[in-house]
Amino acid sequence: MTDLTVAVTQMSCGPDAAANLDRAEALVREAAASGARLILLQELFETPYFCAEQDYGHLALARPFEDNPVLARFAALAAELRVVLPLSFFERDGNTYYNSVAIADADGRLLGVYRKTHIPNGPGYQEKQYFAPGNTGFRVWDTAVGRIGVGICWDQWFPECARAMALMGAELLLYPTAIGSEPQDPDLNSEAHWRTVMRGHAGANLVPLLASNRVGAEPWRDFEMRFYGGSFIAGPTGEVLGRMDDAPGVLTATLDLDAARRQRHEWGVFRDRAPHHYGILTR
Amino acid sequence: MTDLTVAVTQMSCGPDAAANLDRAEALVREAAASGARLILLQELFETPYFCAEQDYGHLALARPFEDNPVLARFAALAAELRVVLPLSFFERDGNTYYNSVAIADADGRLLGVYRKTHIPNGPGYQEKQYFAPGNTGFRVWDTAVGRIGVGICWDQWFPECARAMALMGAELLLYPTAIGSEPQDPDLNSEAHWRTVMRGHAGANLVPLLASNRVGAEPWRDFEMRFYGGSFIAGPTGEVLGRMDDAPGVLTATLDLDAARRQRHEWGVFRDRAPHHYGILTR
Repeated sequence: MTDLTVAVTQMSCGPDAAANLDRAEALVREAAASGARLILLQELFETPYFCAEQDYGHLALARPFEDNPVLARFAALAAELRVVLPLSFFERDGNTYYNSVAIADADGRLLGVYRKTHIPNGPGYQEKQYFAPGNTGFRVWDTAVGRIGVGICWDQWFPECARAMALMGAELLLYPTAIGSEPQDPDLNSEAHWRTVMRGHAGANLVPLLASNRVGAEPWRDFEMRFYGGSFIAGPTGEVLGRMDDAPGVLTATLDLDAARRQRHEWGVFRDRAPHHYGILTR
Repeated sequence: MTDLTVAVTQMSCGPDAAANLDRAEALVREAAASGARLILLQELFETPYFCAEQDYGHLALARPFEDNPVLARFAALAAELRVVLPLSFFERDGNTYYNSVAIADADGRLLGVYRKTHIPNGPGYQEKQYFAPGNTGFRVWDTAVGRIGVGICWDQWFPECARAMALMGAELLLYPTAIGSEPQDPDLNSEAHWRTVMRGHAGANLVPLLASNRVGAEPWRDFEMRFYGGSFIAGPTGEVLGRMDDAPGVLTATLDLDAARRQRHEWGVFRDRAPHHYGILTR
Protein backbone atom coordinates (compact mmCIF):
# COMPACT_ATOMS: atom_id res chain seq x y z
CA MET A 1 0.00 0.00 0.00
CA THR A 2 1.85 3.06 -1.20
CA ASP A 3 -0.97 5.56 -1.62
CA LEU A 4 -0.34 8.94 -0.06
CA THR A 5 -2.97 11.64 0.25
CA VAL A 6 -1.66 15.18 0.09
CA ALA A 7 -3.38 18.56 0.25
CA VAL A 8 -2.97 22.06 -1.05
CA THR A 9 -4.76 24.95 0.64
CA GLN A 10 -5.48 28.57 -0.10
CA MET A 11 -6.90 31.44 1.93
CA SER A 12 -7.11 35.20 2.04
CA CYS A 13 -5.14 37.11 4.67
CA GLY A 14 -6.22 40.27 6.46
CA PRO A 15 -4.46 42.67 8.82
CA ASP A 16 -5.27 40.54 11.89
CA ALA A 17 -2.41 38.03 12.14
CA ALA A 18 -4.14 35.98 14.84
CA ALA A 19 -7.15 35.53 12.60
CA ASN A 20 -4.92 34.50 9.68
CA LEU A 21 -3.21 31.90 11.83
CA ASP A 22 -6.54 30.55 13.04
CA ARG A 23 -7.70 30.29 9.44
CA ALA A 24 -4.55 28.46 8.46
CA GLU A 25 -4.98 26.06 11.37
CA ALA A 26 -8.59 25.41 10.36
CA LEU A 27 -7.48 24.56 6.81
CA VAL A 28 -4.83 22.19 8.13
CA ARG A 29 -7.40 20.46 10.34
CA GLU A 30 -9.83 20.20 7.44
CA ALA A 31 -7.15 18.71 5.17
CA ALA A 32 -6.05 16.24 7.85
CA ALA A 33 -9.65 15.20 8.39
CA SER A 34 -9.78 14.44 4.65
CA GLY A 35 -6.88 12.04 5.08
CA ALA A 36 -4.00 14.26 3.96
CA ARG A 37 -0.64 13.37 5.49
CA LEU A 38 1.22 16.28 3.92
CA ILE A 39 -0.47 19.68 3.86
CA LEU A 40 0.90 22.72 2.09
CA LEU A 41 0.03 26.23 3.27
CA GLN A 42 0.62 29.25 1.07
CA GLU A 43 3.56 31.67 1.20
CA LEU A 44 3.70 34.03 4.22
CA PHE A 45 0.28 32.96 5.49
CA GLU A 46 0.55 34.88 8.76
CA THR A 47 0.18 38.32 7.18
CA PRO A 48 -1.04 40.15 4.12
CA TYR A 49 1.53 40.06 1.32
CA PHE A 50 3.37 43.10 2.70
CA CYS A 51 5.92 43.03 -0.15
CA ALA A 52 3.23 44.68 -2.27
CA GLU A 53 4.59 47.99 -0.94
CA GLN A 54 7.94 49.36 0.19
CA ASP A 55 7.65 50.20 3.90
CA TYR A 56 10.46 49.67 6.38
CA GLY A 57 7.82 49.18 9.05
CA HIS A 58 7.15 45.70 7.70
CA LEU A 59 10.60 44.55 8.81
CA ALA A 60 9.09 44.27 12.29
CA LEU A 61 7.03 41.30 11.06
CA ALA A 62 10.12 39.08 10.80
CA ARG A 63 10.98 36.51 13.46
CA PRO A 64 13.93 34.19 14.00
CA PHE A 65 13.67 30.50 13.19
CA GLU A 66 14.62 29.64 16.78
CA ASP A 67 12.16 30.53 19.50
CA ASN A 68 9.37 31.30 17.03
CA PRO A 69 5.88 31.00 18.52
CA VAL A 70 4.12 30.58 15.15
CA LEU A 71 6.43 27.77 14.08
CA ALA A 72 6.06 26.20 17.54
CA ARG A 73 2.27 26.34 17.31
CA PHE A 74 2.12 24.77 13.86
CA ALA A 75 4.78 22.18 14.68
CA ALA A 76 2.62 21.11 17.62
CA LEU A 77 -0.34 20.98 15.25
CA ALA A 78 1.68 18.77 12.87
CA ALA A 79 2.42 16.42 15.76
CA GLU A 80 -1.18 16.35 16.94
CA LEU A 81 -2.48 15.53 13.45
CA ARG A 82 0.53 13.40 12.41
CA VAL A 83 1.02 15.45 9.25
CA VAL A 84 4.01 16.96 7.47
CA LEU A 85 3.64 20.73 7.37
CA PRO A 86 5.98 23.10 5.49
CA LEU A 87 5.63 26.54 7.09
CA SER A 88 6.44 29.67 5.13
CA PHE A 89 7.56 32.58 7.32
CA PHE A 90 9.40 35.90 7.27
CA GLU A 91 12.74 35.13 8.91
CA ARG A 92 15.17 37.45 10.67
CA ASP A 93 18.65 36.01 11.18
CA GLY A 94 20.87 38.52 12.93
CA ASN A 95 20.86 41.53 10.63
CA THR A 96 19.55 39.68 7.59
CA TYR A 97 15.99 38.98 6.48
CA TYR A 98 14.91 36.00 4.43
CA ASN A 99 11.77 34.61 2.84
CA SER A 100 11.94 31.16 4.41
CA VAL A 101 10.15 27.91 4.93
CA ALA A 102 10.54 25.64 7.95
CA ILE A 103 9.60 21.97 7.66
CA ALA A 104 7.58 20.44 10.49
CA ASP A 105 7.68 16.66 10.33
CA ALA A 106 4.73 14.54 11.41
CA ASP A 107 6.25 14.07 14.87
CA GLY A 108 6.37 17.84 15.40
CA ARG A 109 10.12 18.20 14.94
CA LEU A 110 11.23 21.23 12.93
CA LEU A 111 13.73 19.73 10.49
CA GLY A 112 15.29 23.03 9.46
CA VAL A 113 14.86 25.96 7.17
CA TYR A 114 15.16 26.67 3.44
CA ARG A 115 15.64 30.30 2.43
CA LYS A 116 14.14 31.41 -0.89
CA THR A 117 16.93 31.59 -3.44
CA HIS A 118 15.32 33.67 -6.19
CA ILE A 119 13.94 37.02 -5.10
CA PRO A 120 11.55 38.82 -7.45
CA ASN A 121 11.07 42.55 -7.78
CA GLY A 122 8.55 44.73 -9.56
CA PRO A 123 5.32 46.61 -8.97
CA GLY A 124 3.34 44.73 -6.33
CA TYR A 125 6.22 42.34 -5.58
CA GLN A 126 8.94 44.45 -3.92
CA GLU A 127 10.74 41.46 -2.45
CA LYS A 128 14.27 42.71 -3.06
CA GLN A 129 13.40 45.49 -0.62
CA TYR A 130 13.02 42.99 2.22
CA PHE A 131 14.72 39.70 1.54
CA ALA A 132 18.33 38.75 0.95
CA PRO A 133 18.65 35.92 -1.57
CA GLY A 134 18.70 32.69 0.42
CA ASN A 135 22.06 31.30 1.54
CA THR A 136 20.97 27.74 2.25
CA GLY A 137 20.95 26.49 -1.31
CA PHE A 138 18.21 24.12 -2.39
CA ARG A 139 17.31 21.48 0.18
CA VAL A 140 15.35 18.28 0.48
CA TRP A 141 13.88 16.82 3.65
CA ASP A 142 13.35 13.26 4.78
CA THR A 143 9.91 13.27 6.32
CA ALA A 144 7.30 10.79 7.43
CA VAL A 145 5.83 10.84 3.91
CA GLY A 146 9.08 10.63 1.96
CA ARG A 147 11.76 12.98 0.72
CA ILE A 148 10.31 16.36 -0.17
CA GLY A 149 11.77 19.43 -1.85
CA VAL A 150 10.30 22.86 -1.18
CA GLY A 151 10.82 25.96 -3.31
CA ILE A 152 9.16 29.26 -2.52
CA CYS A 153 7.04 31.16 -5.06
CA TRP A 154 9.50 32.88 -7.47
CA ASP A 155 11.76 29.81 -7.16
CA GLN A 156 9.14 27.97 -9.20
CA TRP A 157 10.06 29.90 -12.35
CA PHE A 158 13.56 28.39 -12.36
CA PRO A 159 13.96 24.90 -13.84
CA GLU A 160 17.32 24.74 -12.06
CA CYS A 161 15.62 24.74 -8.65
CA ALA A 162 13.24 21.90 -9.45
CA ARG A 163 16.01 19.90 -11.11
CA ALA A 164 18.36 20.40 -8.16
CA MET A 165 15.74 19.09 -5.75
CA ALA A 166 15.00 16.14 -8.04
CA LEU A 167 18.72 15.34 -8.29
CA MET A 168 18.82 15.32 -4.48
CA GLY A 169 16.10 12.69 -4.57
CA ALA A 170 12.95 14.70 -3.96
CA GLU A 171 9.85 12.54 -4.39
CA LEU A 172 7.52 15.53 -4.15
CA LEU A 173 8.08 19.15 -5.20
CA LEU A 174 6.22 21.76 -3.17
CA TYR A 175 5.74 25.46 -3.84
CA PRO A 176 4.00 27.80 -1.38
CA THR A 177 3.26 30.91 -3.43
CA ALA A 178 1.65 34.37 -3.48
CA ILE A 179 0.95 35.55 -6.99
CA GLY A 180 -1.85 37.50 -8.60
CA SER A 181 -2.37 40.90 -10.14
CA GLU A 182 0.36 42.97 -11.78
CA PRO A 183 -0.35 46.59 -10.78
CA GLN A 184 1.51 48.00 -13.81
CA ASP A 185 -0.64 46.01 -16.24
CA PRO A 186 -4.24 45.19 -15.32
CA ASP A 187 -4.50 42.97 -18.41
CA LEU A 188 -1.65 40.70 -17.42
CA ASN A 189 -2.88 37.44 -15.91
CA SER A 190 0.00 35.06 -15.27
CA GLU A 191 -2.04 32.16 -13.93
CA ALA A 192 -1.85 29.89 -16.98
CA HIS A 193 1.84 30.70 -17.45
CA TRP A 194 2.48 30.01 -13.76
CA ARG A 195 0.80 26.61 -13.91
CA THR A 196 2.39 25.63 -17.23
CA VAL A 197 5.90 26.16 -15.89
CA MET A 198 5.31 24.08 -12.76
CA ARG A 199 3.62 21.32 -14.73
CA GLY A 200 6.75 21.34 -16.87
CA HIS A 201 8.94 20.80 -13.79
CA ALA A 202 6.78 17.88 -12.67
CA GLY A 203 6.90 16.34 -16.14
CA ALA A 204 10.61 16.93 -16.81
CA ASN A 205 11.61 15.43 -13.46
CA LEU A 206 8.76 12.91 -13.24
CA VAL A 207 8.03 14.08 -9.71
CA PRO A 208 4.53 15.02 -8.45
CA LEU A 209 4.17 18.69 -7.55
CA LEU A 210 1.96 20.76 -5.23
CA ALA A 211 1.40 24.51 -5.38
CA SER A 212 -0.57 26.42 -2.72
CA ASN A 213 -1.26 29.99 -3.74
CA ARG A 214 -2.70 32.92 -1.83
CA VAL A 215 -6.20 34.03 -2.83
CA GLY A 216 -8.38 37.12 -2.47
CA ALA A 217 -7.97 40.89 -2.45
CA GLU A 218 -5.56 42.91 -0.31
CA PRO A 219 -5.89 46.73 -0.42
CA TRP A 220 -2.71 48.80 -0.36
CA ARG A 221 -2.05 52.52 -0.58
CA ASP A 222 -2.12 52.93 -4.36
CA PHE A 223 -3.68 49.74 -5.65
CA GLU A 224 -5.40 46.54 -4.69
CA MET A 225 -3.58 43.24 -5.01
CA ARG A 226 -5.75 40.31 -6.07
CA PHE A 227 -4.27 36.84 -5.72
CA TYR A 228 -5.66 34.26 -8.07
CA GLY A 229 -5.53 31.11 -6.01
CA GLY A 230 -5.62 28.27 -8.53
CA SER A 231 -3.67 25.98 -6.21
CA PHE A 232 -3.15 22.60 -7.82
CA ILE A 233 -1.63 19.16 -7.61
CA ALA A 234 0.20 17.66 -10.60
CA GLY A 235 1.23 14.07 -11.17
CA PRO A 236 4.61 12.84 -12.45
CA THR A 237 3.92 13.56 -16.10
CA GLY A 238 2.75 17.08 -15.28
CA GLU A 239 -0.91 16.10 -15.55
CA VAL A 240 -3.23 18.20 -13.37
CA LEU A 241 -4.82 15.91 -10.76
CA GLY A 242 -6.86 18.69 -9.19
CA ARG A 243 -7.04 22.44 -9.29
CA MET A 244 -8.82 25.06 -7.21
CA ASP A 245 -10.54 28.20 -8.45
CA ASP A 246 -10.41 31.53 -6.61
CA ALA A 247 -12.22 30.44 -3.45
CA PRO A 248 -10.45 29.61 -0.17
CA GLY A 249 -10.29 25.98 0.84
CA VAL A 250 -8.55 22.64 0.60
CA LEU A 251 -7.87 20.28 -2.30
CA THR A 252 -6.57 16.76 -1.83
CA ALA A 253 -5.20 14.15 -4.20
CA THR A 254 -3.89 10.66 -3.67
CA LEU A 255 -0.47 9.85 -5.11
CA ASP A 256 1.46 6.63 -5.53
CA LEU A 257 5.07 7.66 -4.91
CA ASP A 258 6.42 4.17 -5.61
CA ALA A 259 4.75 4.15 -9.01
CA ALA A 260 6.11 7.64 -9.69
CA ARG A 261 9.62 6.45 -8.79
CA ARG A 262 9.36 3.51 -11.16
CA GLN A 263 8.09 5.76 -13.92
CA ARG A 264 10.94 8.23 -13.24
CA HIS A 265 13.59 5.54 -13.42
CA GLU A 266 12.13 3.71 -16.41
CA TRP A 267 11.74 6.87 -18.49
CA GLY A 268 15.52 7.21 -18.37
CA VAL A 269 16.06 10.96 -18.32
CA PHE A 270 18.27 10.87 -15.24
CA ARG A 271 20.38 8.16 -16.90
CA ASP A 272 20.86 10.28 -20.02
CA ARG A 273 21.79 13.68 -18.58
CA ALA A 274 25.02 15.20 -19.93
CA PRO A 275 26.38 17.36 -17.07
CA HIS A 276 29.64 18.18 -18.91
CA HIS A 277 27.53 20.17 -21.37
CA TYR A 278 25.61 22.09 -18.68
CA GLY A 279 28.40 24.42 -17.54
CA ILE A 280 26.75 27.47 -19.08
CA LEU A 281 23.97 27.14 -16.51
CA THR A 282 26.38 27.86 -13.67
CA ARG A 283 28.20 30.84 -15.19
CA MET B 1 6.40 45.09 -38.31
CA THR B 2 7.93 42.22 -36.38
CA ASP B 3 5.54 39.40 -37.20
CA LEU B 4 7.16 36.16 -38.22
CA THR B 5 5.26 33.21 -39.62
CA VAL B 6 6.75 29.82 -38.77
CA ALA B 7 5.66 26.28 -39.61
CA VAL B 8 5.82 22.81 -38.17
CA THR B 9 5.29 19.78 -40.40
CA GLN B 10 4.72 16.08 -39.98
CA MET B 11 4.68 13.14 -42.36
CA SER B 12 4.95 9.39 -42.45
CA CYS B 13 8.08 7.76 -43.87
CA GLY B 14 8.26 4.56 -45.86
CA PRO B 15 11.14 2.41 -47.11
CA ASP B 16 11.57 4.51 -50.29
CA ALA B 17 13.95 7.32 -49.28
CA ALA B 18 13.41 9.24 -52.54
CA ALA B 19 9.67 9.31 -51.89
CA ASN B 20 10.25 10.50 -48.30
CA LEU B 21 12.44 13.32 -49.53
CA ASP B 22 9.89 14.33 -52.14
CA ARG B 23 7.21 14.37 -49.46
CA ALA B 24 9.38 16.51 -47.21
CA GLU B 25 10.02 18.93 -50.06
CA ALA B 26 6.31 19.15 -50.79
CA LEU B 27 5.60 20.03 -47.14
CA VAL B 28 8.29 22.70 -47.21
CA ARG B 29 6.82 24.19 -50.37
CA GLU B 30 3.34 24.13 -48.88
CA ALA B 31 4.53 25.84 -45.70
CA ALA B 32 6.45 28.48 -47.65
CA ALA B 33 3.36 29.14 -49.78
CA SER B 34 1.50 29.80 -46.51
CA GLY B 35 4.02 32.49 -45.67
CA ALA B 36 6.30 30.58 -43.31
CA ARG B 37 9.88 31.85 -43.20
CA LEU B 38 11.14 29.13 -40.88
CA ILE B 39 9.98 25.56 -41.49
CA LEU B 40 10.73 22.65 -39.22
CA LEU B 41 10.86 19.10 -40.57
CA GLN B 42 10.75 16.10 -38.24
CA GLU B 43 13.66 14.03 -37.00
CA LEU B 44 15.38 11.76 -39.56
CA PHE B 45 12.82 12.49 -42.26
CA GLU B 46 14.73 10.68 -45.03
CA THR B 47 14.05 7.21 -43.68
CA PRO B 48 11.80 5.17 -41.45
CA TYR B 49 12.81 5.48 -37.80
CA PHE B 50 15.41 2.71 -38.15
CA CYS B 51 16.36 2.97 -34.45
CA ALA B 52 13.21 0.97 -33.74
CA GLU B 53 15.37 -2.11 -34.21
CA GLN B 54 19.01 -3.11 -33.69
CA ASP B 55 20.47 -3.88 -37.09
CA TYR B 56 24.01 -2.99 -38.08
CA GLY B 57 22.84 -2.71 -41.66
CA HIS B 58 21.25 0.64 -40.83
CA LEU B 59 24.71 2.17 -40.32
CA ALA B 60 24.88 2.37 -44.12
CA LEU B 61 22.19 5.07 -44.01
CA ALA B 62 24.57 7.61 -42.44
CA ARG B 63 26.25 10.33 -44.50
CA PRO B 64 28.87 12.97 -43.73
CA PHE B 65 27.87 16.58 -43.23
CA GLU B 66 30.21 17.64 -46.00
CA ASP B 67 29.36 16.55 -49.53
CA ASN B 68 25.88 15.41 -48.55
CA PRO B 69 23.40 15.37 -51.43
CA VAL B 70 20.28 15.53 -49.24
CA LEU B 71 21.56 18.54 -47.33
CA ALA B 72 22.62 20.15 -50.61
CA ARG B 73 19.17 19.59 -52.11
CA PHE B 74 17.31 21.06 -49.14
CA ALA B 75 19.75 23.94 -48.74
CA ALA B 76 19.03 24.82 -52.37
CA LEU B 77 15.33 24.59 -51.58
CA ALA B 78 15.81 26.93 -48.61
CA ALA B 79 17.51 29.43 -50.91
CA GLU B 80 14.85 29.12 -53.58
CA LEU B 81 12.02 29.72 -51.08
CA ARG B 82 14.01 32.12 -48.85
CA VAL B 83 13.25 30.07 -45.75
CA VAL B 84 15.28 28.86 -42.78
CA LEU B 85 15.31 25.07 -42.77
CA PRO B 86 16.80 22.92 -39.97
CA LEU B 87 17.58 19.51 -41.46
CA SER B 88 17.76 16.43 -39.28
CA PHE B 89 20.04 13.71 -40.65
CA PHE B 90 22.01 10.61 -39.70
CA GLU B 91 25.62 11.77 -39.67
CA ARG B 92 28.82 9.78 -40.08
CA ASP B 93 31.97 11.59 -39.04
CA GLY B 94 35.00 9.38 -39.54
CA ASN B 95 34.27 6.34 -37.41
CA THR B 96 31.56 7.96 -35.31
CA TYR B 97 27.83 8.24 -35.96
CA TYR B 98 25.63 11.04 -34.67
CA ASN B 99 21.99 12.03 -34.72
CA SER B 100 22.48 15.53 -36.12
CA VAL B 101 20.77 18.58 -37.47
CA ALA B 102 22.22 20.96 -40.06
CA ILE B 103 20.87 24.48 -40.32
CA ALA B 104 20.17 25.85 -43.78
CA ASP B 105 19.78 29.62 -43.69
CA ALA B 106 17.41 31.44 -46.04
CA ASP B 107 20.26 32.16 -48.48
CA GLY B 108 21.03 28.45 -48.80
CA ARG B 109 24.18 28.47 -46.69
CA LEU B 110 24.58 25.54 -44.31
CA LEU B 111 25.56 27.22 -41.05
CA GLY B 112 26.84 24.09 -39.34
CA VAL B 113 25.73 21.10 -37.39
CA TYR B 114 24.40 20.31 -33.93
CA ARG B 115 24.76 16.74 -32.71
CA LYS B 116 22.08 15.38 -30.38
CA THR B 117 23.43 15.43 -26.85
CA HIS B 118 20.99 13.13 -25.06
CA ILE B 119 20.59 9.68 -26.57
CA PRO B 120 17.63 7.58 -25.50
CA ASN B 121 17.46 3.82 -25.32
CA GLY B 122 14.67 1.34 -24.81
CA PRO B 123 12.28 -0.87 -26.74
CA GLY B 124 11.48 0.86 -30.03
CA TYR B 125 14.13 3.55 -29.49
CA GLN B 126 17.51 1.78 -29.69
CA GLU B 127 19.44 4.99 -30.28
CA LYS B 128 22.44 4.10 -28.10
CA GLN B 129 23.05 1.31 -30.62
CA TYR B 130 23.72 3.82 -33.38
CA PHE B 131 24.58 7.28 -32.10
CA ALA B 132 27.39 8.59 -29.96
CA PRO B 133 26.24 11.38 -27.65
CA GLY B 134 26.83 14.64 -29.47
CA ASN B 135 30.16 16.39 -29.00
CA THR B 136 29.15 19.84 -30.22
CA GLY B 137 27.39 21.01 -27.08
CA PHE B 138 24.23 23.04 -27.42
CA ARG B 139 24.31 25.63 -30.18
CA VAL B 140 22.34 28.60 -31.41
CA TRP B 141 22.28 29.94 -34.95
CA ASP B 142 21.94 33.47 -36.27
CA THR B 143 19.59 33.12 -39.20
CA ALA B 144 17.48 35.34 -41.43
CA VAL B 145 14.61 35.06 -38.94
CA GLY B 146 16.62 35.56 -35.75
CA ARG B 147 18.70 33.48 -33.39
CA ILE B 148 17.37 29.94 -33.15
CA GLY B 149 18.25 27.01 -30.91
CA VAL B 150 17.62 23.46 -32.08
CA GLY B 151 17.46 20.38 -29.86
CA ILE B 152 16.68 16.94 -31.22
CA CYS B 153 13.87 14.77 -29.85
CA TRP B 154 15.15 13.26 -26.56
CA ASP B 155 16.97 16.56 -25.90
CA GLN B 156 13.53 18.05 -25.30
CA TRP B 157 13.14 16.15 -22.01
CA PHE B 158 16.09 18.04 -20.49
CA PRO B 159 15.41 21.51 -19.06
CA GLU B 160 19.17 22.09 -19.15
CA CYS B 161 19.19 21.98 -22.96
CA ALA B 162 16.40 24.53 -23.39
CA ARG B 163 17.89 26.77 -20.70
CA ALA B 164 21.36 26.61 -22.27
CA MET B 165 19.98 27.68 -25.65
CA ALA B 166 17.98 30.48 -24.01
CA LEU B 167 21.08 31.67 -22.15
CA MET B 168 22.88 31.81 -25.50
CA GLY B 169 20.15 34.10 -26.72
CA ALA B 170 17.83 31.79 -28.61
CA GLU B 171 14.65 33.58 -29.68
CA LEU B 172 13.03 30.37 -30.86
CA LEU B 173 13.44 26.81 -29.59
CA LEU B 174 12.98 24.05 -32.15
CA TYR B 175 12.66 20.30 -31.68
CA PRO B 176 12.47 17.85 -34.59
CA THR B 177 11.24 14.62 -33.01
CA ALA B 178 10.17 11.02 -33.61
CA ILE B 179 8.09 9.69 -30.77
CA GLY B 180 5.11 7.41 -30.52
CA SER B 181 4.33 3.94 -29.31
CA GLU B 182 6.24 2.13 -26.57
CA PRO B 183 6.43 -1.52 -27.69
CA GLN B 184 6.88 -2.79 -24.12
CA ASP B 185 3.68 -1.11 -22.94
CA PRO B 186 0.79 -0.67 -25.41
CA ASP B 187 -1.07 1.43 -22.82
CA LEU B 188 1.66 4.04 -22.46
CA ASN B 189 0.89 7.17 -24.46
CA SER B 190 3.47 9.86 -23.79
CA GLU B 191 1.94 12.56 -25.98
CA ALA B 192 0.51 14.77 -23.22
CA HIS B 193 3.67 14.34 -21.14
CA TRP B 194 5.81 15.19 -24.16
CA ARG B 195 3.89 18.37 -24.88
CA THR B 196 3.69 19.44 -21.21
CA VAL B 197 7.45 19.33 -20.81
CA MET B 198 8.12 21.42 -23.93
CA ARG B 199 5.43 23.92 -23.01
CA GLY B 200 7.25 24.19 -19.69
CA HIS B 201 10.52 25.04 -21.48
CA ALA B 202 8.79 27.74 -23.51
CA GLY B 203 7.18 29.21 -20.40
CA ALA B 204 10.23 29.00 -18.13
CA ASN B 205 12.45 30.67 -20.71
CA LEU B 206 9.76 32.88 -22.25
CA VAL B 207 10.81 31.72 -25.71
CA PRO B 208 8.38 30.43 -28.37
CA LEU B 209 8.86 26.78 -29.25
CA LEU B 210 8.17 24.53 -32.26
CA ALA B 211 8.01 20.75 -32.27
CA SER B 212 7.66 18.69 -35.48
CA ASN B 213 6.99 15.03 -34.80
CA ARG B 214 6.88 12.03 -37.07
CA VAL B 215 3.45 10.52 -37.72
CA GLY B 216 2.01 7.23 -38.92
CA ALA B 217 2.80 3.53 -38.68
CA GLU B 218 6.11 1.83 -39.46
CA PRO B 219 6.19 -1.99 -39.42
CA TRP B 220 9.26 -3.72 -37.99
CA ARG B 221 10.13 -7.35 -37.44
CA ASP B 222 8.43 -7.87 -34.08
CA PHE B 223 6.14 -4.91 -33.70
CA GLU B 224 4.69 -1.87 -35.40
CA MET B 225 5.80 1.60 -34.36
CA ARG B 226 3.07 4.24 -34.49
CA PHE B 227 4.18 7.86 -34.21
CA TYR B 228 1.61 10.21 -32.80
CA GLY B 229 2.29 13.43 -34.65
CA GLY B 230 0.78 16.17 -32.51
CA SER B 231 3.30 18.72 -33.77
CA PHE B 232 2.67 22.08 -32.19
CA ILE B 233 3.74 25.68 -31.78
CA ALA B 234 3.86 27.30 -28.33
CA GLY B 235 4.13 30.96 -27.45
CA PRO B 236 6.42 32.51 -24.82
CA THR B 237 4.24 31.62 -21.85
CA GLY B 238 3.95 28.02 -23.02
CA GLU B 239 0.49 28.59 -24.46
CA VAL B 240 -0.36 26.31 -27.38
CA LEU B 241 -0.85 28.47 -30.49
CA GLY B 242 -1.66 25.53 -32.72
CA ARG B 243 -1.45 21.78 -32.63
CA MET B 244 -1.81 19.03 -35.20
CA ASP B 245 -3.54 15.70 -34.78
CA ASP B 246 -2.26 12.45 -36.29
CA ALA B 247 -2.57 13.42 -39.97
CA PRO B 248 0.39 14.52 -42.12
CA GLY B 249 0.59 18.17 -43.06
CA VAL B 250 1.67 21.67 -42.14
CA LEU B 251 0.71 24.01 -39.30
CA THR B 252 1.68 27.67 -39.22
CA ALA B 253 1.55 30.35 -36.55
CA THR B 254 2.57 33.98 -36.54
CA LEU B 255 4.88 35.11 -33.75
CA ASP B 256 6.04 38.51 -32.58
CA LEU B 257 9.63 37.90 -31.50
CA ASP B 258 10.13 41.49 -30.35
CA ALA B 259 7.12 41.26 -28.06
CA ALA B 260 8.42 37.93 -26.76
CA ARG B 261 11.80 39.51 -26.04
CA ARG B 262 10.18 42.35 -24.09
CA GLN B 263 8.08 39.91 -22.14
CA ARG B 264 11.17 37.78 -21.42
CA HIS B 265 13.15 40.73 -20.13
CA GLU B 266 10.32 42.30 -18.15
CA TRP B 267 9.39 39.07 -16.39
CA GLY B 268 12.83 39.14 -14.79
CA VAL B 269 13.73 35.49 -14.49
CA PHE B 270 17.06 35.88 -16.25
CA ARG B 271 17.91 38.76 -13.88
CA ASP B 272 17.17 36.63 -10.83
CA ARG B 273 18.99 33.39 -11.62
CA ALA B 274 21.44 32.19 -8.93
CA PRO B 275 24.15 30.25 -10.80
CA HIS B 276 26.31 29.76 -7.67
CA HIS B 277 23.55 27.47 -6.38
CA TYR B 278 23.26 25.43 -9.59
CA GLY B 279 26.50 23.47 -9.29
CA ILE B 280 24.68 20.21 -8.59
CA LEU B 281 23.32 20.30 -12.14
CA THR B 282 26.81 19.90 -13.58
CA ARG B 283 28.05 17.10 -11.32
